[in-house]
Amino acid sequence: MDNINQQIIVKSYPSGWLKESDFEYVQSPINKPGEGEVLIRNRFLSLDPYMRGRLSPTKSYAKSAEIGQVMVGSCTGTVIESKNDQFKVGDTVLNSLGWQTHGICNALEIKRIDTSEIAEHAYLGVLGMPGVTAWTGLIDICEAKRGETVVVDAASGAVGSVVGQLALARGCNVVGIAGGIEKCNYVVKELGFNACIDHQAPDFKDQIKSALPKGIDCLFENTGGAIFETLLLLMNPFSRIALCGLVSEYNVNPYGNRSLRSILVNRIKLQGFIVTDKPETWGEIIEELKRAYREGQLKYKLSQSEGIKNAPKALIGLLKGENFGKQVVKLY
Amino acid sequence: MDNINQQIIVKSYPSGWLKESDFEYVQSPINKPGEGEVLIRNRFLSLDPYMRGRLSPTKSYAKSAEIGQVMVGSCTGTVIESKNDQFKVGDTVLNSLGWQTHGICNALEIKRIDTSEIAEHAYLGVLGMPGVTAWTGLIDICEAKRGETVVVDAASGAVGSVVGQLALARGCNVVGIAGGIEKCNYVVKELGFNACIDHQAPDFKDQIKSALPKGIDCLFENTGGAIFETLLLLMNPFSRIALCGLVSEYNVNPYGNRSLRSILVNRIKLQGFIVTDKPETWGEIIEELKRAYREGQLKYKLSQSEGIKNAPKALIGLLKGENFGKQVVKLY
Repeated sequence: MDNINQQIIVKSYPSGWLKESDFEYVQSPINKPGEGEVLIRNRFLSLDPYMRGRLSPTKSYAKSAEIGQVMVGSCTGTVIESKNDQFKVGDTVLNSLGWQTHGICNALEIKRIDTSEIAEHAYLGVLGMPGVTAWTGLIDICEAKRGETVVVDAASGAVGSVVGQLALARGCNVVGIAGGIEKCNYVVKELGFNACIDHQAPDFKDQIKSALPKGIDCLFENTGGAIFETLLLLMNPFSRIALCGLVSEYNVNPYGNRSLRSILVNRIKLQGFIVTDKPETWGEIIEELKRAYREGQLKYKLSQSEGIKNAPKALIGLLKGENFGKQVVKLY
Repeated sequence: MDNINQQIIVKSYPSGWLKESDFEYVQSPINKPGEGEVLIRNRFLSLDPYMRGRLSPTKSYAKSAEIGQVMVGSCTGTVIESKNDQFKVGDTVLNSLGWQTHGICNALEIKRIDTSEIAEHAYLGVLGMPGVTAWTGLIDICEAKRGETVVVDAASGAVGSVVGQLALARGCNVVGIAGGIEKCNYVVKELGFNACIDHQAPDFKDQIKSALPKGIDCLFENTGGAIFETLLLLMNPFSRIALCGLVSEYNVNPYGNRSLRSILVNRIKLQGFIVTDKPETWGEIIEELKRAYREGQLKYKLSQSEGIKNAPKALIGLLKGENFGKQVVKLY
């Protein structure tokens, strides 16, 4: 089917849990690039928790994905036909074509990536948006300093794993939170976190408290819900929280958080952020991430699904925490 | 009883609503000041919402009031006997003797105040801790700018009334929230707020939304609970919240706030603060407040209770929002 563009379009906005039937698989012809454009064949689709927010008519920080249109998202792929002098056939490029195997872009819509030493999919994870997100929350918002205690939940994920490793490199004490023993073992043994607590454990509250005898100075919050409510009570005076996600609440009614008094009593700074707000910072941050990656300070795990038809199922799994590491869909 | 020290001591830490029986009225002899000390007769006791937090064994930002000891608090009074060269009989001084008619202090524990042009009790309100609190939250935390929309709840109170007037003087659009029509009328007609919404109105949510067609840029939060939950959903992108109090939650179980997603989506900065954290800023802020006060930009209302025996009842009333303006107890 190399001469057909396979696409996943948005069929409906879910209420409650996202379902596979909210998407539809379609085929369409592959068009020819116009002057200044290139034709791309995608190899990896990135799946990220923010996508749930796009599948809603509610005002959010970015435009909704539109009903009847291709599902939005970042991808990497190869130029297979070029009408632009800056790009030649065979170039690997980052693009925002979304969930489709092929597509046409102009030069402003794509970025060439160097896969000679770095795997293509890393540009969707540790050296891409998730990596920059981790850096921004930990360094820019939390201002993590040597000797401080940093906590990150969803610790084995694309963002959390980078947060923890960046913090370790800065001399912080790093405690992760993840779902299940296997993820926790990986976070401690492979990534080198000082500890990682399984939030599925019945005595999670006791365990996390014991793991934090000096409290929390910086919290990188990805999950929300009862976990965030528990962590808020363990924050130190003048501590900082980067609110990056509330993934446990995206498909259900919002959680009623009863720990806000800690923000007052402990003079906490809690700040929400979206990594695309500061595009001017990306270049420098990615260079720093690349250095750390080359020096072996940024390990990561890939959670790979195969074939575009499996993208909806894989996104639902990601939102349920069933992935283990950076989730992508490999198209060929 | 001028030769007896009348005191209110803490008898028990309340669970749930503060009760008059949590305090006890006692009499004790008036002692003589030692070398370097002065004897003070208090005239005004300040009552403030933070006091509820002191009546608890739970760790908070300040030491608990101790069972069996005089209830803590700020006061103004007159030096009636002096063994200190810096203070003479008749001087009016700010002190922290708490709920008692008399007491002995050294020079470091008191501050002389000038009552020739400014009423003594103003130093417990608009030109004291509440005034500095208002300035710190609005200017230092919220960074309110000309043309922005500022919202403050408990708007007729000691802090809220100053927040709104400082914001008006800076060219902000100011919307207050208060309990009852009478307070709202005062806030708009006397203090000059652009609008004030009664949170007791059955259609409060609709009214506050209508009053904020451009959303909220700066929120000075005093009350918490359902009001805060509603306001969070009206915040603008990149808006700021100074979390000063959660008075509606101090005597009941903490409220489960379901609006935290707004902090993420709108990249809000929410910061708790305690005005005593930055004592070095007080002098300059109070000078600025005095200037504004002299220029008629800082009006305020006094809610005065009479007699030390009524202090417990007045504090309970304050926590229920029954006061109207800065609450003090006048001792003579």
